[in-house]
Amino acid sequence: MAYIFSSQERVELSLRWQRVQKIMEESGVEALIVSDNTSLCYLAGQIFAGAIYITLGRDPLFFVRRPVGLEGDDVVYIRKVEQIPALLAERGYPVPRRVALEGDVLSFNEYDRLSKIFGEGTVATSEATSILRRARSVKTEMEIEAIRASGVKHAELYKMVPSLFVRGMSDQDLAIELEYQARRLGSLGSMRIFGRTMEVFVGSILCGDNATAPSPYDFALGGAGVDGSLPVGYNGTVIEDGMCVMVDQGGNFGRYMTDMTRVFSVGDIAPLAQRAHDTALEMQRRMMEMVKIGSATADVYNMCLDLAREESLAEYFMGYSQQAGFVGHGIGLEVNEVPVLAPRSREIFEERTTFAFEPKFTLPNIGAVGVENTFVVRESGVEKLTLCEEAIIPIG
Amino acid sequence: MAYIFSSQERVELSLRWQRVQKIMEESGVEALIVSDNTSLCYLAGQIFAGAIYITLGRDPLFFVRRPVGLEGDDVVYIRKVEQIPALLAERGYPVPRRVALEGDVLSFNEYDRLSKIFGEGTVATSEATSILRRARSVKTEMEIEAIRASGVKHAELYKMVPSLFVRGMSDQDLAIELEYQARRLGSLGSMRIFGRTMEVFVGSILCGDNATAPSPYDFALGGAGVDGSLPVGYNGTVIEDGMCVMVDQGGNFGRYMTDMTRVFSVGDIAPLAQRAHDTALEMQRRMMEMVKIGSATADVYNMCLDLAREESLAEYFMGYSQQAGFVGHGIGLEVNEVPVLAPRSREIFEERTTFAFEPKFTLPNIGAVGVENTFVVRESGVEKLTLCEEAIIPIG
Repeated sequence: MAYIFSSQERVELSLRWQRVQKIMEESGVEALIVSDNTSLCYLAGQIFAGAIYITLGRDPLFFVRRPVGLEGDDVVYIRKVEQIPALLAERGYPVPRRVALEGDVLSFNEYDRLSKIFGEGTVATSEATSILRRARSVKTEMEIEAIRASGVKHAELYKMVPSLFVRGMSDQDLAIELEYQARRLGSLGSMRIFGRTMEVFVGSILCGDNATAPSPYDFALGGAGVDGSLPVGYNGTVIEDGMCVMVDQGGNFGRYMTDMTRVFSVGDIAPLAQRAHDTALEMQRRMMEMVKIGSATADVYNMCLDLAREESLAEYFMGYSQQAGFVGHGIGLEVNEVPVLAPRSREIFEERTTFAFEPKFTLPNIGAVGVENTFVVRESGVEKLTLCEEAIIPIG
Repeated sequence: MAYIFSSQERVELSLRWQRVQKIMEESGVEALIVSDNTSLCYLAGQIFAGAIYITLGRDPLFFVRRPVGLEGDDVVYIRKVEQIPALLAERGYPVPRRVALEGDVLSFNEYDRLSKIFGEGTVATSEATSILRRARSVKTEMEIEAIRASGVKHAELYKMVPSLFVRGMSDQDLAIELEYQARRLGSLGSMRIFGRTMEVFVGSILCGDNATAPSPYDFALGGAGVDGSLPVGYNGTVIEDGMCVMVDQGGNFGRYMTDMTRVFSVGDIAPLAQRAHDTALEMQRRMMEMVKIGSATADVYNMCLDLAREESLAEYFMGYSQQAGFVGHGIGLEVNEVPVLAPRSREIFEERTTFAFEPKFTLPNIGAVGVENTFVVRESGVEKLTLCEEAIIPIG
């Protein structure tokens, strides 16, 4: 038997519970039931099969179906979710008039079942996903340190790229070597991505014309992939002279992730590629100058688009045949958290918001250039958590 | 611009469309709207952002949001799903009175939105997932050949295990070496798994006491994992004398998968391990003898449990501290398809059902033993698609 969490873990988790409760209060929500794996990582520090009940003014209750053997005053074993109301009543919890469920994550059938457990006196609403995502967008210091630690490994990985590249390699060959080194450095493998239709393996390498191939996914860039069942990223293009190779490997060195992109070149590259890359770095410089607590995320996107237009690079900005409508996103337990740095976003940067900023340009025949780093918003401005050479690095 | 599929691909896809339409007819469903990525792979041979409309007596229509550039008489570009009814009307399709949606896969919010597009005259039902899963459980010859091709690579991978093992390695070290070789052999990386809460990276290696660690996931066996955010599989146990190492790596050498498990030993192993392994092989022999077209999947599970009891091995069967309630499952585009070989399953084996059969025993201190192979049901009985030595193989 193992305690569900230690008293030290409880101190950290309490900060998160309080943050969720504060947003619940602001949103007029008296109770949440959550069971998404990411939510469980956030609120219990671990995955189990079951659900967490959160209400105002009390600590959460953890209803566990599996695994066997979790202990704790807050742990209640169940066989099915229909047992939850009676178990709450036993513990003196009132029946909620309104309970928020994870409408963006639970399947319709799961939601439908869960929405009926309290009977007709209780209304179910679908806003738990947005409450949790908003809560998760601002990190605790411990979460920030976990992201920073992933960033250190992530940078270590990217420093290996020149020594891993061998002439004649395809983008796929390089990706496989990088994945292998990432795993040896402690990558957990799996990346958590929000959204049912979003898929990628553990990152993306793009070079040559494949960088312009449109993808069905809502990632910053595309790539045809090697199979129609996963149309994103490398497609087997042999890396040749004049190409820029964009490496956007997942930084999942622990459950808190970093996002980082660097560009490598083979042979001489076109002046357009260098100019576009420099423009991306200038976007990053301006972003770091402008973002303060309370800044609008939309302003960052608009600054970037304006600069791309000034430099006559707008047609290559964030894609070519198909362009992404954002230039950054929150990051943490999932690689695509809120806020989204998009033109119509109404979100603002808060103290301890963590986000990836990724101004990129897609250039036909050449590949993709630009930069991506993970940042945290501090009272003094933004701090970069992924520290590694940002120039285009020649590898052959 | 690229045609969504070639005329040759269309011949194959038509077989699948007809199979779905036949089940729709039997179920009294006149229209389906599907957008799950696995469903898109099955019905369009590829992933796109959008939805497929299937009705009786006509070929499906493909409503695409992204990527740009797909061509075909059946392709209709949309910005949002609300455009679908008017576009169907333009093409002379009647308004369905009842439309089945993917209630086990769409999020509540997606389902809710899609259920309203036709207005109040149309009732939405949630049975599309079960219709599609039933359709997919019986393969075409082309799908079977794709599974067979994955099996050949899968066997090639497992033959490398003895040469990859080095004394002093942990289960995780060995897993990383195997993943690397799998990728070099053409593994696509990502594995499709049905079910929101089901997670694994690309397979599982279990040895020593970690094999008995219960997991929250609904896989055959558990393992603690190396992080609470993914509590399954290897946990860093150093592989030592007397241990059995169970390798259950994903066979995703193409979009159609194989499932295969083999056991390796280090040093002398306990007689109990050998006896349990032999019992698993005997279960496989009996399964292959008893399964015909029309056999009940539950009978296979019950035969195995009876044999485990006869051999006084029931306490180790399919887990130790926590036991899985099945001994096999369908396999194809997803690693966990129907039918499920479980005691109360009401499914039967049909001609061209593909399934994984995995009788396993979990032994404290030792690890796990048993076997798993992928099979297809033929008129003459079951055919094994994963051919590779099945004895416990000493590697050190």
